[in-house]
Amino acid sequence: MYTLIIGNRTYSSWSLRGWLACKASGLEFETVVLPMDTPEWDAGSSKGELPSSKVPTLWHTDATGQRMAIWDSLAIIDWLADKVRTARISRGHYWPQDWAARALARSISAEMHAGFTALRQGCPMNLKFNFPDFAPSPEVLADVARIDALWNEARGKFHSIDEAHEGPFLFGTFSAADMMFAPVVTRIATYGLPVSDVSAAYVAEVLAHPWMQEWTAAAKAETFPFARYLIPGGVPA
Amino acid sequence: MYTLIIGNRTYSSWSLRGWLACKASGLEFETVVLPMDTPEWDAGSSKGELPSSKVPTLWHTDATGQRMAIWDSLAIIDWLADKVRTARISRGHYWPQDWAARALARSISAEMHAGFTALRQGCPMNLKFNFPDFAPSPEVLADVARIDALWNEARGKFHSIDEAHEGPFLFGTFSAADMMFAPVVTRIATYGLPVSDVSAAYVAEVLAHPWMQEWTAAAKAETFPFARYLIPGGVPA
Repeated sequence: MYTLIIGNRTYSSWSLRGWLACKASGLEFETVVLPMDTPEWDAGSSKGELPSSKVPTLWHTDATGQRMAIWDSLAIIDWLADKVRTARISRGHYWPQDWAARALARSISAEMHAGFTALRQGCPMNLKFNFPDFAPSPEVLADVARIDALWNEARGKFHSIDEAHEGPFLFGTFSAADMMFAPVVTRIATYGLPVSDVSAAYVAEVLAHPWMQEWTAAAKAETFPFARYLIPGGVPA
Repeated sequence: MYTLIIGNRTYSSWSLRGWLACKASGLEFETVVLPMDTPEWDAGSSKGELPSSKVPTLWHTDATGQRMAIWDSLAIIDWLADKVRTARISRGHYWPQDWAARALARSISAEMHAGFTALRQGCPMNLKFNFPDFAPSPEVLADVARIDALWNEARGKFHSIDEAHEGPFLFGTFSAADMMFAPVVTRIATYGLPVSDVSAAYVAEVLAHPWMQEWTAAAKAETFPFARYLIPGGVPA
């Protein structure tokens, strides 16, 4: 049995990554929202539901009743990738098969995991509002330019090298790299950040993905307060 | 053919992680030092030897002559883990087999990858000097306390659950989690940071590991300038 604890769907970008990882597994899982920035959050954290005090955290209860936590979206991606591979669940797809594609997919996913702080801090994920008059800082623009280059490299090098690379995502089929960059995709739309045509097409494909549509619809239905993210100039998304 | 590009051995903590990942693979590899903070560094970076402008970067040339880069130590660990598993090279060991152990190993490695910034910034890795009079900030102490708790959890839960967990490292046999925490181990020694007896014993085991001995000896032989890290109060290590 799998239970994914998330902070919210509107602005918890790491929660989105962990949830996409669970969707990709093909496994049944329950999603529990432990609203961030509330007393419940602190209570949940102190009860040990969040061993790292962070979302997402995936709980798994195995056949022997042993309960284990996996936290951090990249750890969840790889733990599930290992599990799905070992259990031979055919639907699960995480990393490209081609070694060169896998090298780039893992490298850019790790770079996303530990970097791009200007973009992450300056343009928080926000699925309820758009900011048409947003003026990005040079640091944000540098992060976006780097990401744009990485997306172009992935799309340029690996598109259609084989059947698995024919899809519209970074390495063809929706992969772990797309999970890691999905919140960036939403930020480009939310803040109107400038990207190349190749990346703009990729952004449109990710936003149209059924999992992203499902997540975004649920985000728009969230009603708890988001005082932290009521940035001036926002128009409902 | 594998070539690992590192920044130096004295204070490039990420280089150490990538190098340990290569050692663990059992594959032949060449190590190239592109000294950080020098004109060669900038030249190498601009030539495309470091696609992310960061070390470590692992270059692989495959049987068809295709050359590919893998950057970021966690990406290198996982790309090599995939490669070694597929190629059935028996010596390579990265992640514990037990699912609960693997969940904790992946979670704490990801936490290390993206976190502990106070410790990383306040106590840079330095294998040439010790700082016996170092006074850690509350933020550094909080990071150390968290790491100490994680190490105790790993050692307490998984030690001796089966043969693979009988070794003295976090999950028994030297694993990817030990690679990720190896630079922290050196910092605890370098700055005399306070840890529990369980963690102190673990620190001693890691420092005595042949790969760490080999790396540290090479670091002490490095002669290029380290102006950045000549912190007052250092005594030769």
